[in-house]
Amino acid sequence: MTENPPVGTDLPVLRVAVLGAGTVGTEVLRLIAEQGEDLAHRIGARLEVIGVAVRDLTRDRGEFVPAGLLTEDAGALVDDADLVIEVMGGIEPARTLLLRAMEGGASVVTANKALLAQEGAELYEAADRHDVDLYFEAAVAGAIPLVRPVRESLAGDRIQRVLGIVNGTTNYILDAMTRSGADFGDALASAQELGYAEADPTADVQGHDAAAKASILASLAFHSRVRLADVYCEGITEVSAQDIAAAARMGRTIKLLSIVERVEDESGERISARVYPALIADSHPLASVSEAYNAVFIEADAAGSLMFYGQGAGGAPTASAVLGDVVSAARLRVRGGMGPRESRYAALEVAPLEELRSAFYVSLTVEDRPGVLAEIAGTLSGRGISISTIHQELGRDRSADGPATAHIGISTHRALESAMTAALDEFSSTVTVLSIDSVLRIEGD
Amino acid sequence: MTENPPVGTDLPVLRVAVLGAGTVGTEVLRLIAEQGEDLAHRIGARLEVIGVAVRDLTRDRGEFVPAGLLTEDAGALVDDADLVIEVMGGIEPARTLLLRAMEGGASVVTANKALLAQEGAELYEAADRHDVDLYFEAAVAGAIPLVRPVRESLAGDRIQRVLGIVNGTTNYILDAMTRSGADFGDALASAQELGYAEADPTADVQGHDAAAKASILASLAFHSRVRLADVYCEGITEVSAQDIAAAARMGRTIKLLSIVERVEDESGERISARVYPALIADSHPLASVSEAYNAVFIEADAAGSLMFYGQGAGGAPTASAVLGDVVSAARLRVRGGMGPRESRYAALEVAPLEELRSAFYVSLTVEDRPGVLAEIAGTLSGRGISISTIHQELGRDRSADGPATAHIGISTHRALESAMTAALDEFSSTVTVLSIDSVLRIEGD
Repeated sequence: MTENPPVGTDLPVLRVAVLGAGTVGTEVLRLIAEQGEDLAHRIGARLEVIGVAVRDLTRDRGEFVPAGLLTEDAGALVDDADLVIEVMGGIEPARTLLLRAMEGGASVVTANKALLAQEGAELYEAADRHDVDLYFEAAVAGAIPLVRPVRESLAGDRIQRVLGIVNGTTNYILDAMTRSGADFGDALASAQELGYAEADPTADVQGHDAAAKASILASLAFHSRVRLADVYCEGITEVSAQDIAAAARMGRTIKLLSIVERVEDESGERISARVYPALIADSHPLASVSEAYNAVFIEADAAGSLMFYGQGAGGAPTASAVLGDVVSAARLRVRGGMGPRESRYAALEVAPLEELRSAFYVSLTVEDRPGVLAEIAGTLSGRGISISTIHQELGRDRSADGPATAHIGISTHRALESAMTAALDEFSSTVTVLSIDSVLRIEGD
Repeated sequence: MTENPPVGTDLPVLRVAVLGAGTVGTEVLRLIAEQGEDLAHRIGARLEVIGVAVRDLTRDRGEFVPAGLLTEDAGALVDDADLVIEVMGGIEPARTLLLRAMEGGASVVTANKALLAQEGAELYEAADRHDVDLYFEAAVAGAIPLVRPVRESLAGDRIQRVLGIVNGTTNYILDAMTRSGADFGDALASAQELGYAEADPTADVQGHDAAAKASILASLAFHSRVRLADVYCEGITEVSAQDIAAAARMGRTIKLLSIVERVEDESGERISARVYPALIADSHPLASVSEAYNAVFIEADAAGSLMFYGQGAGGAPTASAVLGDVVSAARLRVRGGMGPRESRYAALEVAPLEELRSAFYVSLTVEDRPGVLAEIAGTLSGRGISISTIHQELGRDRSADGPATAHIGISTHRALESAMTAALDEFSSTVTVLSIDSVLRIEGD
């Protein structure tokens, strides 16, 4: 009943299985070892790590991962556990192991955003069927408490919108590009050298990681099931040094944003979930989030604007989030009761991007002759797109015998995505526009 | 079991009593009325407001507070409730009513920081004894999820320090002084006119409200019982326009900070809990928290630095936090289990301010003659206090026959509070120092 048993009391023991002993797994094991007494007080039970499933038994993993606990037989390990911590990543064998763990009656804590985004429904249903808990705070924005605030603290409110920087690698790269004027390739190479980007950076720079987190956030915020495939996703590989310079001239910064929001139009109430690099005003709190930090901005009807900021990745921060979940799940094992389940009663549909309205920044290379601006403005206004600002400069690539060229940067007021697509198609088929160099959205105004 | 009962299912009903129908109470009732269907889905039960206790039955309180629900008999009301929401404020009769509610088996949600800071131990014990829940997210930093992150999300981590702007009124006043150069009296008057400060602003400007929140945060963060009386507290009434200008010259901003941290010295591990106006670097995230916003910075061993930002007061934001707790408490009523209890196993002592080390900003009016600076520096170094920067200007109040005077602003490196007190005593007794104009601490470096 009490959380403060006198020292010496015999506490119950919870058997913990850890799947994976990489950076996060090692930190989880370190925290359990170093804070064992504190955790026992907070839980009302002792955590006993009964095994650590790894692929390579022979590798030395330091003092907090005793060789005697290592096993290749993850299946047998989860069968013996009260609580399974999954920090191996990837879809399989994580999915099969977590389903097996829950079927066997163990509660589960996972940091695996890809698995949740792709197979969340199956996992939630297994937790429900077998009457166990499924916690995943570490899957979104690392150490930043976000899952718990969204699904518990704001459970009496109505969330309208979540706007987040939830991928540290891409924020590090865009921040480096903004500070140094470097282009994407150089900034990526330097991020890789410094360990901020992986050797294969695809999941980060293509936005897949941010999209997985967006699908999880959208599901929680809107009490609906939003799958990874529902999230529109553009990465940052096409963001150029010129785009960043143009944004700066407009008092803006380019960030990779995960955006989930309620959309209300003639089709009724729907959800939008999307990830893309966008221009936000320098005065927006998200603009000053530097290096590999994460931050998430939430707008709710009653609470107003909230922001959460912290480290979104890394062994220790992710392990902190995992351990918070372990304490919650473990308390429920000891005292009875059940954590929050999947909540999808609202069953809102996801609106396709074409039906949304955004403000845009479009950069074009055009023929440098009288009347071109008027033509371009005409194309846009013909599609119902209203121009906010225009910036024109002479082309840098003017060749001796080709036509004189100019670069034009246009920002628009909010317009239908499908209207912009049509306008861009029209630009592509005209001789006046030599190339469409960038199309980026403007957010957060 | 599921949170998504098909529409039409007969849901159980939870009887809710609301104590108080002021700004927050009215918003709570509005949210329950407007979001009834959503709340029912999220809880798995319907909330039925069975009564609203007020002192004046005759006043019209708008559409969401039906006259038929009003009662002066708060005691009888709580006896009939499954869940009691206390938003009346003050110590009595709130304390007696909440104890009676818990004794009768009701769970309790309160926004009452003063009550928790002063009578928290009694309330926690009652919750424990009667096997009911006591939630209070709204008591600290309004809509910002803070209680849940600190006691649940970070339950597997070790919090070192919490640095917060948790009183909107004083932040509004200091922000206005910083922007306009106004002095305290004028800024307070204008805050009162605009509704940011109450007619009797004592609890805010003297720091009592911030101290109550500091005691709650310290108790949660350090698993110890920290009472209001344990919190050292200075308000902002002595902060002058000159102090703010001097801070700006040093690249700093003055904020009223609630600081709770672990202290480790020859006396072992202890807690410090204190509230005072302090200079923080303009580059610190808390420096840019403007108007009546709140923000809290948390440093934990594994999670690193986290920041939470949002509206700390106001009817709707506070009601959002209250409703989040209502959903949590109600879910537990429906499904069984129990929320987090008081955790005070660590039982750390609170270190008195004199034994702490801080950096200081001291402003003195001194005789303007050779050797004065050396004397002052000598006094400080004699106490082991090392100077970081000195700024000297001619006195503005130089009178015709009095001695020529100068103002000196000194910032120091970290020094023992007791050493600074002794140095200030020495300044008071010397003819060289005509007056000690300000003594402020420097934080967040």
